[in-house]
Amino acid sequence: MSRIAVDVMGGDYAPGAPVAGALLASRETRSELILVGDAKRIGKELDKAENTPDNVSIEPASEWVDMDESPVTALREKKDASILVGMRAVKSGLADAVVTAGNTGAATVASKTVLHTLGGADRPAIAVRILNPTGSTVLLDVGANVDCKPRHLLQFAIMGGVYARVILGVRAPRVGLLSVGTEDSKGNEVTKAAYKLLSEREEPLNFIGNVEGGDLFSGNVEVVVCDGFTGNIVLKSGEALAASFETLLRTEFSSDVFSAAGSLLTRRALRRFKSKIDYSEHGAAPLLGVKGVVLICHGHSSPIAIKNAVFAAERSLSRNLNDHIVTALEDML
Amino acid sequence: MSRIAVDVMGGDYAPGAPVAGALLASRETRSELILVGDAKRIGKELDKAENTPDNVSIEPASEWVDMDESPVTALREKKDASILVGMRAVKSGLADAVVTAGNTGAATVASKTVLHTLGGADRPAIAVRILNPTGSTVLLDVGANVDCKPRHLLQFAIMGGVYARVILGVRAPRVGLLSVGTEDSKGNEVTKAAYKLLSEREEPLNFIGNVEGGDLFSGNVEVVVCDGFTGNIVLKSGEALAASFETLLRTEFSSDVFSAAGSLLTRRALRRFKSKIDYSEHGAAPLLGVKGVVLICHGHSSPIAIKNAVFAAERSLSRNLNDHIVTALEDML
Repeated sequence: MSRIAVDVMGGDYAPGAPVAGALLASRETRSELILVGDAKRIGKELDKAENTPDNVSIEPASEWVDMDESPVTALREKKDASILVGMRAVKSGLADAVVTAGNTGAATVASKTVLHTLGGADRPAIAVRILNPTGSTVLLDVGANVDCKPRHLLQFAIMGGVYARVILGVRAPRVGLLSVGTEDSKGNEVTKAAYKLLSEREEPLNFIGNVEGGDLFSGNVEVVVCDGFTGNIVLKSGEALAASFETLLRTEFSSDVFSAAGSLLTRRALRRFKSKIDYSEHGAAPLLGVKGVVLICHGHSSPIAIKNAVFAAERSLSRNLNDHIVTALEDML
Repeated sequence: MSRIAVDVMGGDYAPGAPVAGALLASRETRSELILVGDAKRIGKELDKAENTPDNVSIEPASEWVDMDESPVTALREKKDASILVGMRAVKSGLADAVVTAGNTGAATVASKTVLHTLGGADRPAIAVRILNPTGSTVLLDVGANVDCKPRHLLQFAIMGGVYARVILGVRAPRVGLLSVGTEDSKGNEVTKAAYKLLSEREEPLNFIGNVEGGDLFSGNVEVVVCDGFTGNIVLKSGEALAASFETLLRTEFSSDVFSAAGSLLTRRALRRFKSKIDYSEHGAAPLLGVKGVVLICHGHSSPIAIKNAVFAAERSLSRNLNDHIVTALEDML
């Protein structure tokens, strides 16, 4: 049984969607759900439900960080921000994990400043799962660190490998370094130096060398490592491209003479397509490398996405993900 | 009337597709098409056609760079490589432009070493057009320079802006800097410094600030600037995502009970979809910033893509693209 703090003030549909998601989760788990945020507004949301399960409680926070606020400034000024209150709950032992759909930068900064990084990890990294026809590929970092040194990429590789093994159940996850060509010599200054560091590591790190942008969707690599600048841009461009496919297909089919049959087929295909590519549906992105379990959901997460994030947090806790990460970093650095 | 050298030894379907493409072009233009490569093999390809138009000639080259060869090593060893012979033809005044579907790195290195960069341009940049619902966005650099300094990004912005104006006919193209957030403060060390340089420029550079990965497909910016590492990864991941989308749709629809109607609709939608996103269909990517006109086609270019690249080269020549670039660099640096 775990205690999961849900920052219900974060996200585009806060506090409605996060509260609803926590309630959904609370009915399927014996874990304790701690709703962090404006007590009055949370109360109103809870009133909408038939009853509040016993395993749901409120931890008041009078402030919150908006989606477009500068993380550092906001956290400096808002000492009672919900994301900080959630992190402090973990720090003090009141909670075991934090789930948030709020400002990603604020979640990262709050994690670093309140929880600190795990021994051996200089920086935390945000990892997302990209689904492909045969399974999934974990991409990290997608935004916690815009400027990385080679040793950070090495640490991300180790943490990503552990995550794929412990959480996703891949026996010997192949780890690739995102670059502009598969040859050893390809890359920028940082990745070329990181390549060297990674090549020197032996098992259990299964480093397969450089991979390209296209490999993210190929199923031939389980973990792909990059700096947070590149990762963020790849992720956002991919999301936008997928959304533009959807729009384009809707237009194509609705303009078609077979519109009735077409739209039925399209709706079905699009739904399955979305469920395959939309990482928000598959729970949240873990922030790896901090002393605590932190799951970051997409800003427009639905209640189901929040529920899945709660279960992802439980999995990280029950499988002692962080202990495995610390051991791996100790062994391989 | 221009003289366009086509490196027919480059690309996945060389020399068949490039020769066929040059022949297609030769029947629609009065420009001279100079086929650069193995004379015997070119002769065989020409024999397949009914007749060889008068405006097609052969410039022999006994060697060529394969798609997976290291550009620098290959060009050092193969002095008679077709891409070098093509560049020398431009340098000596025998040709005005080079079109190639070969090794991109080799085309870039050969351009730099034989033709040299334009005054004011420290580095050339490869620019691709990404189509979106309302027009297109030019992304540069997508692979010529993996490590960039802020001043290089400034130069790319100026060259990209001129390209959009002179070739694509956009009156005051909006230029954005690819980053991880739209706020001024977002970015890595290089983009933050580049942001400052770009902000100091006035008209005709219409700098709109940072843009994100998602903006590449939004239609709200006409030119997006980034280093070649990021650009290459975004481009390749986008191509792969589009391809996986296609596969997924084919699977969805073929498994459907309405398979007959579905597949008809799908084929039509996919065809239109592909023609919208596949940049190889829309001619080639210009290498901006070199003394000469160089068009780089996708490795698996069809004859039609090669033909379109020839016309793109003609357009760059007839509109004096390089003169405009030199003037703009002089005015704004």
